Amino acid sequence: MERFKIWIDKANILLEVLPYIKKFHNSTIVIKIGGEPMVDETAKMNFALDVVLMKYVGINPVIIHGGGKQITDMMRTLGKNPVFINGLRVTDKKTMEITEMVLTGLVNKDIVGLINHHGGKAVGVSGRDGNLIEAVKWKGRSDLGFVGEVKKVNPEVITTLIEKNFIPIISPVGLGQKGDAYNINADTAASRIAVALKAVKLIILSNVRGIYRKPDDEKSFISTLKIKEISRLIKKKIVTKGMLPKVESCIYALQNGVRKAHVINGLIPHSIILEIFTEAGVGTEIIR
Amino acid sequence: MERFKIWIDKANILLEVLPYIKKFHNSTIVIKIGGEPMVDETAKMNFALDVVLMKYVGINPVIIHGGGKQITDMMRTLGKNPVFINGLRVTDKKTMEITEMVLTGLVNKDIVGLINHHGGKAVGVSGRDGNLIEAVKWKGRSDLGFVGEVKKVNPEVITTLIEKNFIPIISPVGLGQKGDAYNINADTAASRIAVALKAVKLIILSNVRGIYRKPDDEKSFISTLKIKEISRLIKKKIVTKGMLPKVESCIYALQNGVRKAHVINGLIPHSIILEIFTEAGVGTEIIR
Amino acid sequence: MERFKIWIDKANILLEVLPYIKKFHNSTIVIKIGGEPMVDETAKMNFALDVVLMKYVGINPVIIHGGGKQITDMMRTLGKNPVFINGLRVTDKKTMEITEMVLTGLVNKDIVGLINHHGGKAVGVSGRDGNLIEAVKWKGRSDLGFVGEVKKVNPEVITTLIEKNFIPIISPVGLGQKGDAYNINADTAASRIAVALKAVKLIILSNVRGIYRKPDDEKSFISTLKIKEISRLIKKKIVTKGMLPKVESCIYALQNGVRKAHVINGLIPHSIILEIFTEAGVGTEIIR
Amino acid sequence: MERFKIWIDKANILLEVLPYIKKFHNSTIVIKIGGEPMVDETAKMNFALDVVLMKYVGINPVIIHGGGKQITDMMRTLGKNPVFINGLRVTDKKTMEITEMVLTGLVNKDIVGLINHHGGKAVGVSGRDGNLIEAVKWKGRSDLGFVGEVKKVNPEVITTLIEKNFIPIISPVGLGQKGDAYNINADTAASRIAVALKAVKLIILSNVRGIYRKPDDEKSFISTLKIKEISRLIKKKIVTKGMLPKVESCIYALQNGVRKAHVINGLIPHSIILEIFTEAGVGTEIIR
Amino acid sequence: MERFKIWIDKANILLEVLPYIKKFHNSTIVIKIGGEPMVDETAKMNFALDVVLMKYVGINPVIIHGGGKQITDMMRTLGKNPVFINGLRVTDKKTMEITEMVLTGLVNKDIVGLINHHGGKAVGVSGRDGNLIEAVKWKGRSDLGFVGEVKKVNPEVITTLIEKNFIPIISPVGLGQKGDAYNINADTAASRIAVALKAVKLIILSNVRGIYRKPDDEKSFISTLKIKEISRLIKKKIVTKGMLPKVESCIYALQNGVRKAHVINGLIPHSIILEIFTEAGVGTEIIR
Amino acid sequence: MERFKIWIDKANILLEVLPYIKKFHNSTIVIKIGGEPMVDETAKMNFALDVVLMKYVGINPVIIHGGGKQITDMMRTLGKNPVFINGLRVTDKKTMEITEMVLTGLVNKDIVGLINHHGGKAVGVSGRDGNLIEAVKWKGRSDLGFVGEVKKVNPEVITTLIEKNFIPIISPVGLGQKGDAYNINADTAASRIAVALKAVKLIILSNVRGIYRKPDDEKSFISTLKIKEISRLIKKKIVTKGMLPKVESCIYALQNGVRKAHVINGLIPHSIILEIFTEAGVGTEIIR
Repeated sequence: MERFKIWIDKANILLEVLPYIKKFHNSTIVIKIGGEPMVDETAKMNFALDVVLMKYVGINPVIIHGGGKQITDMMRTLGKNPVFINGLRVTDKKTMEITEMVLTGLVNKDIVGLINHHGGKAVGVSGRDGNLIEAVKWKGRSDLGFVGEVKKVNPEVITTLIEKNFIPIISPVGLGQKGDAYNINADTAASRIAVALKAVKLIILSNVRGIYRKPDDEKSFISTLKIKEISRLIKKKIVTKGMLPKVESCIYALQNGVRKAHVINGLIPHSIILEIFTEAGVGTEIIR
Repeated sequence: MERFKIWIDKANILLEVLPYIKKFHNSTIVIKIGGEPMVDETAKMNFALDVVLMKYVGINPVIIHGGGKQITDMMRTLGKNPVFINGLRVTDKKTMEITEMVLTGLVNKDIVGLINHHGGKAVGVSGRDGNLIEAVKWKGRSDLGFVGEVKKVNPEVITTLIEKNFIPIISPVGLGQKGDAYNINADTAASRIAVALKAVKLIILSNVRGIYRKPDDEKSFISTLKIKEISRLIKKKIVTKGMLPKVESCIYALQNGVRKAHVINGLIPHSIILEIFTEAGVGTEIIR
Repeated sequence: MERFKIWIDKANILLEVLPYIKKFHNSTIVIKIGGEPMVDETAKMNFALDVVLMKYVGINPVIIHGGGKQITDMMRTLGKNPVFINGLRVTDKKTMEITEMVLTGLVNKDIVGLINHHGGKAVGVSGRDGNLIEAVKWKGRSDLGFVGEVKKVNPEVITTLIEKNFIPIISPVGLGQKGDAYNINADTAASRIAVALKAVKLIILSNVRGIYRKPDDEKSFISTLKIKEISRLIKKKIVTKGMLPKVESCIYALQNGVRKAHVINGLIPHSIILEIFTEAGVGTEIIR
Repeated sequence: MERFKIWIDKANILLEVLPYIKKFHNSTIVIKIGGEPMVDETAKMNFALDVVLMKYVGINPVIIHGGGKQITDMMRTLGKNPVFINGLRVTDKKTMEITEMVLTGLVNKDIVGLINHHGGKAVGVSGRDGNLIEAVKWKGRSDLGFVGEVKKVNPEVITTLIEKNFIPIISPVGLGQKGDAYNINADTAASRIAVALKAVKLIILSNVRGIYRKPDDEKSFISTLKIKEISRLIKKKIVTKGMLPKVESCIYALQNGVRKAHVINGLIPHSIILEIFTEAGVGTEIIR
Repeated sequence: MERFKIWIDKANILLEVLPYIKKFHNSTIVIKIGGEPMVDETAKMNFALDVVLMKYVGINPVIIHGGGKQITDMMRTLGKNPVFINGLRVTDKKTMEITEMVLTGLVNKDIVGLINHHGGKAVGVSGRDGNLIEAVKWKGRSDLGFVGEVKKVNPEVITTLIEKNFIPIISPVGLGQKGDAYNINADTAASRIAVALKAVKLIILSNVRGIYRKPDDEKSFISTLKIKEISRLIKKKIVTKGMLPKVESCIYALQNGVRKAHVINGLIPHSIILEIFTEAGVGTEIIR
Repeated sequence: MERFKIWIDKANILLEVLPYIKKFHNSTIVIKIGGEPMVDETAKMNFALDVVLMKYVGINPVIIHGGGKQITDMMRTLGKNPVFINGLRVTDKKTMEITEMVLTGLVNKDIVGLINHHGGKAVGVSGRDGNLIEAVKWKGRSDLGFVGEVKKVNPEVITTLIEKNFIPIISPVGLGQKGDAYNINADTAASRIAVALKAVKLIILSNVRGIYRKPDDEKSFISTLKIKEISRLIKKKIVTKGMLPKVESCIYALQNGVRKAHVINGLIPHSIILEIFTEAGVGTEIIR
């Protein structure tokens, strides 16, 4: 039997995930991917493999992607200077056109192609398709143009695709009342869609490991966090900048029915399935 | 009763279309839109209204669009010079990226937005979504890069959307064997998809009225044409250039089960519903 | 483009009805036809066309017809003198037999034949079929014999037919507890069935244009009326006689979930589709 | 146990029918009722009970009725003299009107009322409803007016009703090409409908016991008969007159897929269930 | 007609049961069989026939059986002495093994074989199959080992079988938390399963006729009994011993939605269908 | 990233099985378990885990078990001496009773309990349930009593259970024409059921590793074998005794549509998932 030892060890690893497969069978898990993991070729391939695996073991993954860097690059190539106010992109008509074109025509299809190449059946849609994301102009202090807020999610196009075992890939563009396009924050879109789909889990992939109590101390990493603890971390300005919208999206999702939210590092190979299928996980999970 | 005369006339016009509604009830009609009609704002709005009307009277429209002009414009803006060999765009990696981005991210969503704004539920997909259009590299004399031929159509994503009363809008991008994108001729794509969907009709919208026996004689316009007559017109070089791929797509569709094919002028307001719902039609219909 | 002007005008008229088609898509509309419109050959044909059109644009019409004149004629031919008390027909055993025979065997099948001839799939049933209308003897001051009141509507046979895209035509005969037949007022039957079917609209076709504030002043015609205003008109004896049961049926329907009720002139060609598909309408609409 | 003897005997009788119930479970049996059994009150009640029982033990009965006597009576009452040529009723416009009215409005609803009263859910239709029986003018030597032949049976309305456990009752009126009504022989209609419904059995109820080898010798009664033997009996003029169309309908049904046909006496109480549920049966069964 | 008299009488008996067939159409009836009727060959065959008849007339029978005698026999053969405390079998590991083996492997399959032989499609399951009966250790004064109480019924496996027209035969073995087997009282199991299946009737077959007011006076037999009367009979110690758990199971079922419960003598031939299909019945029925 | 190395390795192992999961998605795999693996507690537990894992990753396992050793033990305990002729058990009435009781009541439920305990929803049936295995007496030279051959497989009860995601566990008992039980060889039953279920794979678990070219030379182990090569090994008497019926069952399955058959050692932990999910496998696979 010695001969088979390596194989048996492999079999045991397969069986270790059985309880998690049972737990999430037929459940929907919404994953937001953005930033570096979407630029790194290896990270993207691992991401695609993870998503296909999820589908085949009976989980319904729904992907929402960002694409800020790609938009900025395209704007520059087109000789347009990106302007940001408090981290939000000022989005005039032309910028919106570039935004939608890059997100829906480039980034989205890139993911679709990868997943389909690895044996999934991905279908990419934007928030304008099937009126998925109804948007209104963002009402902030400054006029940011076509920056929008989610008014309503009509998940029918997504549930239709899930029923037929397609993997939906969503670009965060909203449909305005006149049929026009709005730039929607991808974290927010992910959390609103997770709620509309009654997802059990929201996973936000970024390029950091998760949340730390002390930003510079690797040992202060937090594996599990309650909503109320987060409030404290925000007040203390420990959770800031790029992490803030992610964490707020997690909180919104949790307060509206999603059971767990995760912030993980998409650059760690297979971080998604590690987070879903192992006890420890690799990132920070947020619970109620 | 005199008082109601105008109204009754209107009612009679409604009733005139009844036989056509009966005839096409629950049928699928594939419409290819390209060129000028897709650039003209009024033409686009009329197009959107026609499509929505079709859906509501029980017909299933499926739209495939082109976008050559928009691609060329974008290439120029990005400082890339478009090169054509025998009317086919030489498509290197970068050009393919621009092509997909413009078709799927810009042109497609523009149509989606318009239709949804007029009360339809459009969902835009590219040929890469759900493996809709499997493509192989075009095998011609010159190496055109990512110009592809349709290898196989997997219509499941489209039939799924039709079943739930969405209106599918398809951009003609094919999925290569490695998951990469190929530039597919929109007329060809339309005819292949019409066959795969067992459509009863293929309508090709362009900016000319249809086919003429003598190119410069408006009176020589042909309303109805048989396949074999076309062959003669092609031999005589009367059907040429831009019209040739359209006509060949029509023939392919007719020879593979589609009942009628039409070449019509998308700049005539509501030319689609005139062609479908009136005896005379406004363009050239091709039959077996 | 001048050449296509007439056609384009026609197309525009088609498009004018689009908002109404959207609004009533998949809805059930109950139409009661009685009196003159059922005797006039042109009116009947127009009626049949309207009903078929409704079906094909996605609305579910359900027809309930009267037939008082035809019953009276047949009774006379058979040498039986019709007797009325307060406008209600005294219905002995023999009269009931004639009533059912004429309504279900003659009038109903006449409508079925017409609709089927114009491309619909009509199926005629009486209130005895599938226990559609359970009736009890009318409890008024005089003994009117087999005049019945609606006790309960079992709409299953109608919903079964609608699901398979048949157009149900109902004759107003009720099923007594012993399996015998009862004469039911067609207006009442229509309103009860509209409620049971959760119809959005009840349309009563008669031979007058609708309701007037001053009976003899054409200019005092009322296009829209609220329930409470009607009560006043009834008190003032402006709404009387034949109009009273129609209006009461409308009120019952409105108070039990139907959204709008209409009294229109069935002799105006295509008055049904004018009422449904145009802003102004041709008759009086009653709302809550 | 002696005490329970009578009950146990009853139980045993119930169990005797079990093999027949198994055999015909979910099968369709077409029954034609005509002549005396439809006039005799007791016979009708027994008929209704039998039909309801069949439905409840899992068999799908479909009833087609005649009504010649009732038509003749009504014509006489209306002062119209019935004329027959070779046993076929000369049917002018007025006669057709009376025919349809009596069959569909009187006879049909009488049966519907009875069955519903005994707990079934009967729905009466004529051959015009849902285009059930498409007819053409009978092409015989004499012009019989609106006497029709069955051109095509569209069984959809019947299968729709069966699926929802309604019991269809059909009056033999056909739909002409202009939507008008035709008088169809009920035996023929029954056999055509049996074939269209893929019925396992056709039962024709009349007022004689079945077929005899010697017309006047009760002992020469035939319980089972093959098609080819019948041909001989017809040649020998032993099967004649009223029995001939019945027997020919049986033969047509057998030659087109129906497994057994029966001619039985509808005046024998419960002759239908005796014929279906007992070994011997009470009438003549015809087999291939 | 004299000739057909016997047959007609038979037909009338068939029709006598029609009201009962109507009443219980598509209903579930749970039958517990135990003791002598399961040992007597004739009784078993009659039982099987009754169950098959029920199925074919549209009722869904679900059978739960006991097998105490057979277990005791097997234990003795295997040299193990059965021990009872207050009528409950002390069930050590080995005894439980024998119990399950005899109930599920012998008694259950014997019934399955019989029913299938008579034309039914029986499928035998134990309470462990599909987690049908979740059990916990019985918490009484003495430690009886693997004697269990019903904790929860998961009826999905049974409803799955019923939907496909199988007849479920259940052996009263429960599934413990570790996957092990527990001995469950069959009367209790029957009543819990009847409730979980929303059965209309619970019938308990034993070897006595039912309940008597005076145990030794045949004339004091009670046909119908209310729950509260039973309480009195129990207090007066008239209902005792073997009858007590049967009666308590009936009461539980009645108090949780089952409409009627019956205690009848399974040795009377066809007592089940007599009880279901006749007015008088043969046993004691208990109502709320 | 070093820190996550072990985890990432685990993730990679999960992903290694993805191609196999894709390949067998929604497929049925029939597994026969017999002999030692069914007696060894650890082997049984591993078996149960493997089966549950298969189910959760979208494969439909169907289990058929043997139980010869357990039958022999029980016979001995009951004082009955097992007799074998050419390896087949002489099966008189009493032996058959013990056989069924042990197989269906003991061995089958033991497996059901284990699988349910590990999170599956197993349902045990014998070949008598739902007429799954129709059997006839084995026609060999000697009279072996109730030893049967498979006459016909009616897989409906199994497909019903699969559809609702139950895991069917089958004991190899056949249903004779009189409803009696027959002893069926489990290997044969497995192969016949695999064919009836259109399984893609038949796996036979025993206590040897597979097939060797030289019985005593571990190095001569054969990983893949074609049908025709087996014939040679049988002729050369290299495949003999216990292995012969296994191999013949594999051949039958392959010749009737099953794609691959495997003989593997059930004592190697997780040998089933190793055989299904790894390139090399652990046993001998037989192909056409």
